[in-house]
Amino acid sequence: MRASVYHGPGDVRVERVPDPQIKTATDALVRVTHACICGSDLWFYRGDSKNWTAGDRTGHEWMGIVEDVGREVRGIKPGDCVVAPFAYSDGTCEFCSKGLQTSCLSGGYWGGDDNDGGQGEAVRCPQADGTLIVVPPAVAGDEAMLKAILPLTDVMGTGHHAAVAAQTRRGGSVAVIGDGAVGLCGVLAAQRLGADRIVAFGHHAARLEIARRFGATDVVMARGDDAIARGIEMTGGGFESVLECVGTTPSMALASAIARPGGTIGYVGVPFGTKEGLDVRRLFSNNIALRGGVAPVRQYLPELLADVVAGKLDPSPVLDLTVDLDGVPRGYAAMAARKAIKVMVCPA
Amino acid sequence: MRASVYHGPGDVRVERVPDPQIKTATDALVRVTHACICGSDLWFYRGDSKNWTAGDRTGHEWMGIVEDVGREVRGIKPGDCVVAPFAYSDGTCEFCSKGLQTSCLSGGYWGGDDNDGGQGEAVRCPQADGTLIVVPPAVAGDEAMLKAILPLTDVMGTGHHAAVAAQTRRGGSVAVIGDGAVGLCGVLAAQRLGADRIVAFGHHAARLEIARRFGATDVVMARGDDAIARGIEMTGGGFESVLECVGTTPSMALASAIARPGGTIGYVGVPFGTKEGLDVRRLFSNNIALRGGVAPVRQYLPELLADVVAGKLDPSPVLDLTVDLDGVPRGYAAMAARKAIKVMVCPA
Repeated sequence: MRASVYHGPGDVRVERVPDPQIKTATDALVRVTHACICGSDLWFYRGDSKNWTAGDRTGHEWMGIVEDVGREVRGIKPGDCVVAPFAYSDGTCEFCSKGLQTSCLSGGYWGGDDNDGGQGEAVRCPQADGTLIVVPPAVAGDEAMLKAILPLTDVMGTGHHAAVAAQTRRGGSVAVIGDGAVGLCGVLAAQRLGADRIVAFGHHAARLEIARRFGATDVVMARGDDAIARGIEMTGGGFESVLECVGTTPSMALASAIARPGGTIGYVGVPFGTKEGLDVRRLFSNNIALRGGVAPVRQYLPELLADVVAGKLDPSPVLDLTVDLDGVPRGYAAMAARKAIKVMVCPA
Repeated sequence: MRASVYHGPGDVRVERVPDPQIKTATDALVRVTHACICGSDLWFYRGDSKNWTAGDRTGHEWMGIVEDVGREVRGIKPGDCVVAPFAYSDGTCEFCSKGLQTSCLSGGYWGGDDNDGGQGEAVRCPQADGTLIVVPPAVAGDEAMLKAILPLTDVMGTGHHAAVAAQTRRGGSVAVIGDGAVGLCGVLAAQRLGADRIVAFGHHAARLEIARRFGATDVVMARGDDAIARGIEMTGGGFESVLECVGTTPSMALASAIARPGGTIGYVGVPFGTKEGLDVRRLFSNNIALRGGVAPVRQYLPELLADVVAGKLDPSPVLDLTVDLDGVPRGYAAMAARKAIKVMVCPA
């Protein structure tokens, strides 16, 4: 089959790779119909992440049609339209039972040198029963619906995790730092959880417009001390919940500075400088909690999928560019140049 | 009156200071009967804290007998035996209403250049109604009981805050890092909250013996990688709750390393190197939360006091040296040399 392969910073190629096959009794073989390029893919694309080596497969957000299953798979069958979280998990271990599937004792992530990536024609999915969710057949042929479901594989679940980790409450005040796909989904999640005041902090007017459509009551396009002063002033002392959706030093510094005493920072940005930005003294003096991490998207998928299918949730506006498999390198370039928020890949 | 005054690192003197007087209608004037020297006082005593200037008054843990009250004070009257948390608070603002009295909008701390310290003959207490708790008259003459109540002014409330922040649960696994007074009280708090496994990490055999008496099921006297390996091994992957009761780089590094995926670090050690020790990558990858900060001891005082009075809680073994007011400098020296865990000061 053909799939996207990492060769070095700025160099992602679509090429022939071995066809995936069922290896263990709990596997499923899935033909990918929709995938994404993620903001976190840019960490290796830009050369910021050193864990990648040439030959690694890329892409961790995907949906598809099941072609075959191992003999122990019970809940998934050929022909099912399925959606996968960005990590696979057995669904039965201590951590899966606690809703923390990203710490599954038998789990792992798509791509790299161990597993198929989502940016390709097919994926061998380990732990199929614990991992995959079947899309209701009634909507499995509805392209608009599938596009709204696709962000549940990562960014919508991650934005939701930020909102949950930050203890977003009905009627509460929420800051969302970052106007990338995760930040925008964080706004949507905060709105869905009933926050009263939602302020989106970002640097791109067009993206902040989407934040408004997603439920932001205010947007702040400022940096550093200006952004801090605005946030403190508009809330009379800071936000109860701060969703840190970037993972850099300035974003965590802003989060540390605009959280209200007793409030909570929910951080989901892959940490590249997070620690440096963290103001532990302020957190300590004001009992501001730091919660979050890599999102257990699998835990949230059923409830978010139900809302999408019911027409109550639609994160698809974050997918503002669509490419076919050959267009994957162009998709990376567009995201790296901030010409696209998030790219949808349709291999077929 | 006479009170303890900071003059520089290693130099604390008991000398004449102005007699305190009622200044505002919400004040109380309290004759101190019992006070403490705190592990956190050692930060300035050792010269590690740069916020102190010669002439500052010392001591933030105290109890006493009310001598006079301002005309708006309702809940406190002359003759009452009262216990004070280490911070004063109005009891009515947004943060007091949320149980976060250390962030009170009209609050403050004892000592320094603004307020009387606890290590003296008397204290002018602002916000008396919001701050002071009356000790039940039935036990107000019982010296053993008063000694058991005295740690509620700080270390017992702080250890309890660590346990609460770390989400200690009945049947859960808890690590307590630090065998100072706060760590030992953290063990007591974890035991009181019903934890099943409580492992105390420290460096002093005699203190770890008290930890055992307070409910530790295991003690670990090791450092660095050894301590980490022991903690991970004995829990099969880490503790659900980690109480970080020191505030240094090695203690937070240990806390980061031995928390279980999905677990929580409750940190209450005044941060002198906490950030440097924090392993944000591990926290992020495993969704380990960081909660805590300066303890809202006032919030916990009523419930802890009730347990002490009922004979169900006794942190007094942490007070292993008693001095009179003239003995305060000797008390500091004993604690700095680790010859005492915590010093009780009886001015009368």
